[in-house]
Amino acid sequence: MPKVRIGVAGLGRIGRVHAEIILTRLENAELVAVADVVESLARSVGEKYRVKWYTNFDAMLKDPEVDAVFITTPTNLHKEMIVKAAEAGKHVFTEKPITVTVEEAREAVRAAEKAGVKLMVGYMRRFDDAYSAAKARIARGEIGEPLVFINIARDPGPPPGWAQDPRLSGGIFLDMLSHDFDMARFLVGREVKEVYVKGEAALYDEIRQKGDLDLVTISFTFEGKGYGLIHGSRKSVFGYDLRTEVLGTEGTVYVGSQVDPNLAVGTKQGLSYRGVQWFWSRFYDAYVREDEAFVSSILKDEEPPITGVDGLRVVEIAEACWKSWREGRPVTVERSA
Amino acid sequence: MPKVRIGVAGLGRIGRVHAEIILTRLENAELVAVADVVESLARSVGEKYRVKWYTNFDAMLKDPEVDAVFITTPTNLHKEMIVKAAEAGKHVFTEKPITVTVEEAREAVRAAEKAGVKLMVGYMRRFDDAYSAAKARIARGEIGEPLVFINIARDPGPPPGWAQDPRLSGGIFLDMLSHDFDMARFLVGREVKEVYVKGEAALYDEIRQKGDLDLVTISFTFEGKGYGLIHGSRKSVFGYDLRTEVLGTEGTVYVGSQVDPNLAVGTKQGLSYRGVQWFWSRFYDAYVREDEAFVSSILKDEEPPITGVDGLRVVEIAEACWKSWREGRPVTVERSA
Amino acid sequence: MPKVRIGVAGLGRIGRVHAEIILTRLENAELVAVADVVESLARSVGEKYRVKWYTNFDAMLKDPEVDAVFITTPTNLHKEMIVKAAEAGKHVFTEKPITVTVEEAREAVRAAEKAGVKLMVGYMRRFDDAYSAAKARIARGEIGEPLVFINIARDPGPPPGWAQDPRLSGGIFLDMLSHDFDMARFLVGREVKEVYVKGEAALYDEIRQKGDLDLVTISFTFEGKGYGLIHGSRKSVFGYDLRTEVLGTEGTVYVGSQVDPNLAVGTKQGLSYRGVQWFWSRFYDAYVREDEAFVSSILKDEEPPITGVDGLRVVEIAEACWKSWREGRPVTVERSA
Amino acid sequence: MPKVRIGVAGLGRIGRVHAEIILTRLENAELVAVADVVESLARSVGEKYRVKWYTNFDAMLKDPEVDAVFITTPTNLHKEMIVKAAEAGKHVFTEKPITVTVEEAREAVRAAEKAGVKLMVGYMRRFDDAYSAAKARIARGEIGEPLVFINIARDPGPPPGWAQDPRLSGGIFLDMLSHDFDMARFLVGREVKEVYVKGEAALYDEIRQKGDLDLVTISFTFEGKGYGLIHGSRKSVFGYDLRTEVLGTEGTVYVGSQVDPNLAVGTKQGLSYRGVQWFWSRFYDAYVREDEAFVSSILKDEEPPITGVDGLRVVEIAEACWKSWREGRPVTVERSA
Repeated sequence: MPKVRIGVAGLGRIGRVHAEIILTRLENAELVAVADVVESLARSVGEKYRVKWYTNFDAMLKDPEVDAVFITTPTNLHKEMIVKAAEAGKHVFTEKPITVTVEEAREAVRAAEKAGVKLMVGYMRRFDDAYSAAKARIARGEIGEPLVFINIARDPGPPPGWAQDPRLSGGIFLDMLSHDFDMARFLVGREVKEVYVKGEAALYDEIRQKGDLDLVTISFTFEGKGYGLIHGSRKSVFGYDLRTEVLGTEGTVYVGSQVDPNLAVGTKQGLSYRGVQWFWSRFYDAYVREDEAFVSSILKDEEPPITGVDGLRVVEIAEACWKSWREGRPVTVERSA
Repeated sequence: MPKVRIGVAGLGRIGRVHAEIILTRLENAELVAVADVVESLARSVGEKYRVKWYTNFDAMLKDPEVDAVFITTPTNLHKEMIVKAAEAGKHVFTEKPITVTVEEAREAVRAAEKAGVKLMVGYMRRFDDAYSAAKARIARGEIGEPLVFINIARDPGPPPGWAQDPRLSGGIFLDMLSHDFDMARFLVGREVKEVYVKGEAALYDEIRQKGDLDLVTISFTFEGKGYGLIHGSRKSVFGYDLRTEVLGTEGTVYVGSQVDPNLAVGTKQGLSYRGVQWFWSRFYDAYVREDEAFVSSILKDEEPPITGVDGLRVVEIAEACWKSWREGRPVTVERSA
Repeated sequence: MPKVRIGVAGLGRIGRVHAEIILTRLENAELVAVADVVESLARSVGEKYRVKWYTNFDAMLKDPEVDAVFITTPTNLHKEMIVKAAEAGKHVFTEKPITVTVEEAREAVRAAEKAGVKLMVGYMRRFDDAYSAAKARIARGEIGEPLVFINIARDPGPPPGWAQDPRLSGGIFLDMLSHDFDMARFLVGREVKEVYVKGEAALYDEIRQKGDLDLVTISFTFEGKGYGLIHGSRKSVFGYDLRTEVLGTEGTVYVGSQVDPNLAVGTKQGLSYRGVQWFWSRFYDAYVREDEAFVSSILKDEEPPITGVDGLRVVEIAEACWKSWREGRPVTVERSA
Repeated sequence: MPKVRIGVAGLGRIGRVHAEIILTRLENAELVAVADVVESLARSVGEKYRVKWYTNFDAMLKDPEVDAVFITTPTNLHKEMIVKAAEAGKHVFTEKPITVTVEEAREAVRAAEKAGVKLMVGYMRRFDDAYSAAKARIARGEIGEPLVFINIARDPGPPPGWAQDPRLSGGIFLDMLSHDFDMARFLVGREVKEVYVKGEAALYDEIRQKGDLDLVTISFTFEGKGYGLIHGSRKSVFGYDLRTEVLGTEGTVYVGSQVDPNLAVGTKQGLSYRGVQWFWSRFYDAYVREDEAFVSSILKDEEPPITGVDGLRVVEIAEACWKSWREGRPVTVERSA
């Protein structure tokens, strides 16, 4: 079987994780190039893995040895890079969220469609062992008809770097909670219809100053049937606290856990456990399977498991969330054609 | 120390539990009488415990050996019984909720105030070992300032008997979820301000036919600061699933668990656990401490730990929930004077 | 159906628990008398429950209204009381262990056989919801053939009162770990063959001074097939830590848990849980079912579920444990005829 | 800082894991060569990572660009390879156990000492986040003085390939349970003194035919003070079941868990969880830290955290276990000078 030759653009942490996975874990892919505007970073990764390195994305797109690109840059750059890559005939994997605005997302989707390239968005939780098993068990009917989706998502701290600026990241509903809305759509299998949002920047001054929120609650409904509750916080002092559950007519599925069961110390004060580490170790295998799925969709010429339209849908929801928050009332999600 | 002499009126399951606790567990109380309109029931309990038995509540109220009464009848009977007992000079413990309507609750509260008798409402979760420890740790500042209250409450099945009729029980917001709103007020220490409700009778035909709901989600705010999410379901096929959490600026408190850790069986299919049994065994010790607290408030002439006004507050919230559900919009809780 | 009329002899905590259960929970039994050599205790319990009270066991045995007795006195008194009760034609429930020595146990068993009365020994764990479900699932073959039994038993503190004296209690192997050997026999269904014991009084001076041990490890074998490990400690600073597991050819059963899942507090130091309380609340329902089973065996004239011979078997094992400990070598359990 | 240039010899799964880690995760090391007697394997790994590849270990040892070697071949080959590498002046990391016999282990240790090269043995659990935190908390005195070590180790299946032959692997006490004895020494900080072993090949015909055991229980003592229990099984049908605990005078440390908390499905049959996967995902980060520690010991010219003598000690214990098993009696571990 031929191998998909991949270039990774954007060598922050998540970019380096994808590069490492492509190099060491994928049977049917080859890491051939990396790119970053910071030359020292591009060079050091390129030399370490003995692949070509670029400081210019356009140059990488001209490389005929590159079949597909991973876009792992700040969100505000995604739209232009997706469009360019599509126009250059490269298949595109973009980190989530697809873009900052609905309009951008539609443009990105159209560009990929027009060029006939694959476009996949990186909501890696779908490939997590627990979440994907949850999906499979719901699909097999083990809990009957899904009725209620609940998601509690608490990050151990504020987002790093550029993601603190909602103009670059889309803010909490897109940068953080789009994972949770993607999971709602994935597990329940219906679109989100109406959202009602409460929230504020209650935890960090810098987040308030930049116009983002760090603490929100969302009540929402699904089209057709069913309800949802999402809570997001940018603070959880003991670790990463991510839990999801779906109640069905015949059972309940629970994913996630706030406690690491692997160490307990019992003293006069009781039993002390540790929290769960952030998503890097939790979701490493999910990233591997996600990258495999992207490569497989290219080799088999199939639709990627998370399409550009999937990416668009959660941007639509995030925009409705901002509107509900600003106007203090329930808002119906507007669906693009 | 003198003993409080108690009569229990209403000998359904919860009434018999209180009678048993008063007889066997309370140092400073004496079970002297029981009452039920069903004569065979009143007689059998009275003879078993060798105490007086009545089929008429008024007759029990005339008994000079009765210092205090427990009202453990259907909710729609509470108001009249509380008023009568107060007028007879008896201290009153009433099972939750205090009454079906706000108007009735205010009348009951006024009657007790006028008569100068104690009036306590039985939200026993406050005396549960885990919930009361959670309260103490929040009060000590262990999680900083409480910001978000989340409560997931799933009963293993529909309510039994009279509680299926919302005219007698007040419906899901009062019969079931008033526990959760009481806990929100107790743990966070602020009043509930605005509620937004979604829900339906999705699980049981009989509940829909009687005009009640069996599946709801509620987004709400606290006065001053903070948000809440409550989900209630009258169905949880594997057991009683009640979990509460409070996120504060410096930590999170979790109460409850959906799994019984005491038995696991690992086979090729994985590890199978059991759910948690319904509240009788979970909360037995809480009922004991609750009854002790009522007796203590009488002997020390102190305000009971859960007052008639506490009972009134959650009836107000429940009325706002019904209004939000009917009108499909966020509703502000109207507070009685 | 007639009721079994019961007298409880020995009104320490466990005696009062049995009295309370007989009074409030058993359909087919009636508490008719209590006895204790401490007059004030006998009187206060008798008056509270409005039953006859004795300070003399012989007098209670002469009471024609007493069909059966519960013996809940220190272990060293069991043998004589069982024999007397049997000779008086009373059915006997004795708290565990049956007696201090094998010889005494044999005498007690013979007396009951000769008199044709029921004799049951109170290893209440067999009636615990989790342990009995474990037994049922093993019996149904869910884990294949049982091969390894492991039991970790840690009490929160040293035994109270008379149980600190091994001449009265039989010491750690009988007073504490006979529960675990009873469970080994119950769950695996085979007799214990050889024991190898290590241990000392490592935790408490008073235990060492009285000649008992407080920390032991035991490796043992079952007759026919299978191995066991037991560890007992009289100290577990955060709570009662009792866990049992059975590995079979096709699975594993786990009973017990060291952590109470009902409360967690997450702060910068991690997540803190509480231990499990001692056995009173854990096993209350087991005591109820145990007492029901004894009453039922009388009414149906069947063999009690835990016979005098079951009681004898664990005394034999405990004697072998002491011998192995003294001689520092593996010892075969000598089985009485 | 200079980098340690490493060659990995033996490209089975564990060898490839080390190669991948050296390539992608270590700051101060460089993967320069790989070796395997199977040419196609050596070539494919070498080409994938663009490093030199050998089919002959001696040739790799002559490579002046190789500063250190990882020996990840079957155990029976370790001794000769360690000695050769030491004589060639290469630092040596060897997978556990160090060798099959005590005599071989002593020879390997002497060769490294004589050559003045580092020799480290790969008991990676010491670098696991939970085990190393347990060690740190014991060392800080959080549980007082350690008194009892208990380890339950159940593999999901029999060992693969060559490890099924006890002549190549050393059998269950060395191939599997030497991890547990290493952990006993590590956590408690004392040497193992006496072992008493029971066991058989109860689970797999092929293991019995090759003269190994698959089900054992071990009771042992520490020098100075303290007791231990180890149980090992080559079968655990639902997953990898590894749990360790240390009871001290003031508390208890628990490491490991048999259940994966990340997914639960509640249906009428109860709640079903999954077991924990085998050690690859559980211990990947531990392998990273282990390899870092080896590289660091070279760069800082310090003693490796797990020395050849540490490796020797557990071979001594394993030999005593075999002797106890054969002779059916407690055996004292003979310590080499």
